[in-house]
Amino acid sequence: MSEPFLLGVLGGMGPLATLDFQRQLLEATPAQSDQQQLPSVVWNVPQIADRQKALAGTGPSPLPQLIHGIRVLNQAGASHIAIPCNTAHHWYEALSEASAAPILHIVDATLAALEQEANTPQRVGIIATKGTLDAGWYQQKLAAQGIEVVEPTPEELTQWFVPGCYAVKRGALKEGGELLAQQALALFARGAQKLILACTEVPVALQAVDAPFLHLTFDPAQALAERCSQLWQAN
Amino acid sequence: MSEPFLLGVLGGMGPLATLDFQRQLLEATPAQSDQQQLPSVVWNVPQIADRQKALAGTGPSPLPQLIHGIRVLNQAGASHIAIPCNTAHHWYEALSEASAAPILHIVDATLAALEQEANTPQRVGIIATKGTLDAGWYQQKLAAQGIEVVEPTPEELTQWFVPGCYAVKRGALKEGGELLAQQALALFARGAQKLILACTEVPVALQAVDAPFLHLTFDPAQALAERCSQLWQAN
Repeated sequence: MSEPFLLGVLGGMGPLATLDFQRQLLEATPAQSDQQQLPSVVWNVPQIADRQKALAGTGPSPLPQLIHGIRVLNQAGASHIAIPCNTAHHWYEALSEASAAPILHIVDATLAALEQEANTPQRVGIIATKGTLDAGWYQQKLAAQGIEVVEPTPEELTQWFVPGCYAVKRGALKEGGELLAQQALALFARGAQKLILACTEVPVALQAVDAPFLHLTFDPAQALAERCSQLWQAN
Repeated sequence: MSEPFLLGVLGGMGPLATLDFQRQLLEATPAQSDQQQLPSVVWNVPQIADRQKALAGTGPSPLPQLIHGIRVLNQAGASHIAIPCNTAHHWYEALSEASAAPILHIVDATLAALEQEANTPQRVGIIATKGTLDAGWYQQKLAAQGIEVVEPTPEELTQWFVPGCYAVKRGALKEGGELLAQQALALFARGAQKLILACTEVPVALQAVDAPFLHLTFDPAQALAERCSQLWQAN
């Protein structure tokens, strides 16, 4: 392809997670000057229907707005597209059909990174929205690698995950971090050796409370950023 | 205007400063949910001719690339455009002509914010590129308010500012911060009561070394972010 490399980022879900992803893109790229950093165009428009509510059947679908963002990124010249939001991957097929540029899948990037770990864990916990858990992408691909999956219970999601997530979204990072840390500890208590933080709000919040188990967590957005950076460097 | 609010950010100068500006946009906006945050589309393409070298006559002009970014942002639906790079404002007139959306001027935003300070300083230092200093925007507008300006000498720029700036651009924030702190202290020593950090690399670097005089500095990118957020909130 002679088309120049330009990463389109379909962000805004939420706006803070989009910034965190951009920081991960910078950190993943060894650069001695501005010019060596990965070029990107970022659609960071958070006025988008709530993904969790849409999948619970209590709100409108975000698909038309997601497709609009994908079209803007294509028009801007994106050669590849990344979506730093696990739940939005529910609409991955429809978005791929609407996009000339290929969309990198966050689950594929995560599993590829997990495969490269020195000691592959036997049991992995997943912190994610009900939408991501119901979709089953992580569970199926982990099972295919012989890895047992530990999931939050519906009660845990209601008590810790959902309020933790919405706390982050209103900027209360510490409050969110403390709730999400409870969720994480419950998964460790049920035998998880590592955790996949499969919702882009979670790593930001756990860092804000300096959670002591961060070295046992795996951030899909970071895996996606590293995959994007590899493509840019090989360009 | 019935056109929806969408901030276009002409970034990439450098990519880290562009992220810092996006963080300032979030912080300037009181939001209880993702949906209340300012919507933006960000052109973060650092493969752009070096502004300092272009103005020194030792490199090509970045204008064609800047105009391309402005066109992409307009095409994406930007209702307003912000450029979180002081030096790039050298091409402000030409960019405004190429843009249907109005471009907010970083110097106007800064001076408006300075006017609202409780105790207006008598003498203000400016840390900026030679291009920004030669353009004289800050000096003229400060003088019009009866404020005396303290500028870096050419020797100081060579010894501290320029190497400090390029250190930031290659990710060496602490090294850059130490050099730029020397520049700042020299301006305080010549009587500056406050400093305008009129190059978007400088605040990031001074924060990285936790400079003890940060409360005496003024960040034009932050003033610009606050202006953008006011427009969004009044929308």
